[in-house]
Amino acid sequence: MSQSYNSQLLDNAVAHLAKLPGIGQKTALRLALHLLRQNEDVAVGLGEAISEMRRNIRYCSKCHNISESDICPICSSPRRDAATVCVVESVKDVLTIEATREFNGMYHVLGGVISPLDGISPSDLEIDSLVERVRSGEVEEVILALNPTIEGDTTNFYIFRRLAECQVRISILARGISIGNELEYTDELTLGRSILNRVPFADTFSTQ
Amino acid sequence: MSQSYNSQLLDNAVAHLAKLPGIGQKTALRLALHLLRQNEDVAVGLGEAISEMRRNIRYCSKCHNISESDICPICSSPRRDAATVCVVESVKDVLTIEATREFNGMYHVLGGVISPLDGISPSDLEIDSLVERVRSGEVEEVILALNPTIEGDTTNFYIFRRLAECQVRISILARGISIGNELEYTDELTLGRSILNRVPFADTFSTQ
Repeated sequence: MSQSYNSQLLDNAVAHLAKLPGIGQKTALRLALHLLRQNEDVAVGLGEAISEMRRNIRYCSKCHNISESDICPICSSPRRDAATVCVVESVKDVLTIEATREFNGMYHVLGGVISPLDGISPSDLEIDSLVERVRSGEVEEVILALNPTIEGDTTNFYIFRRLAECQVRISILARGISIGNELEYTDELTLGRSILNRVPFADTFSTQ
Repeated sequence: MSQSYNSQLLDNAVAHLAKLPGIGQKTALRLALHLLRQNEDVAVGLGEAISEMRRNIRYCSKCHNISESDICPICSSPRRDAATVCVVESVKDVLTIEATREFNGMYHVLGGVISPLDGISPSDLEIDSLVERVRSGEVEEVILALNPTIEGDTTNFYIFRRLAECQVRISILARGISIGNELEYTDELTLGRSILNRVPFADTFSTQ
């Protein structure tokens, strides 16, 4: 239950702020009182930025990433490689991969991973549209970039089987020890995998 | 500097969210993406609640607490004791004291405490208006409820001197060991004070 603070307007703002993930009643009140102390344009600017964003952001009809137009800037860019499609779980992952500046292809945002426990089946995800995209013939390689969890692996395998009939290369992000990490603190599963999947040293020179 | 996320609207919302205290760039992005996943009325409701609050909340012209009208509900309540005025630092402290349900008087929100290091002098605070309120004759007791810090004590002493000429009782919140705390973990200053200011045991029965 939300508390009452002698002002309907304050109560309302606090109740809305407290719905945000990781923000409880006390933090919500602190944020609301902070906003009250700021100039009017700071608080009203925040309010309007949130409303405008939610009202006007759509999803790209091709890759399902967020977009302000029907086709997102990545999908419509002539400088990006349309033959390589990186499959990710969420919009956040697109931003994370873009931040590496190592990938110049397209994306396909699934909107989640297969998780029977959470009631998420393949039909809830953008998997059919991925298969369609691949079948259209313009895609040469699909890179599976889901999180390395059980659900992610299940989804990887499901997609792999769905695409088996298509003439497309299917690759997956390399798994191994993190750069800068110490072996001592790497978990056994990862370290074991990175031994099994070791690569010729000479190959590492050609990465860049 | 704020990052760019391929959408001006998202960038803008993230930049505004990241200005909130305790919310950095990453949390702001997480919150913005969370709001994008919600129904439109959740995000737009939050945006409008913030804008509405900041646009329409004013400050009570008598006690300087937040209010939706010229005089706040506490100051205009006939059931509250206008002869007792509790002096607090901020709006938050009014809410904190109200939550105890032990106080039935009025408030006076200073808007801060005297702090030369932060450039806050008595003229930046609502001290003149407090003196005026007391001089008007309706106040019988002023309760100093500032935070027990050096700045709070300085401000207490300043107010005490300003009100010296007035026929008004000036009291201060009791300082001592916290209820439920163990003596072993009470700081020495507080424990020392609570020994010096010990009260007759029989008096404690009459509190409630």
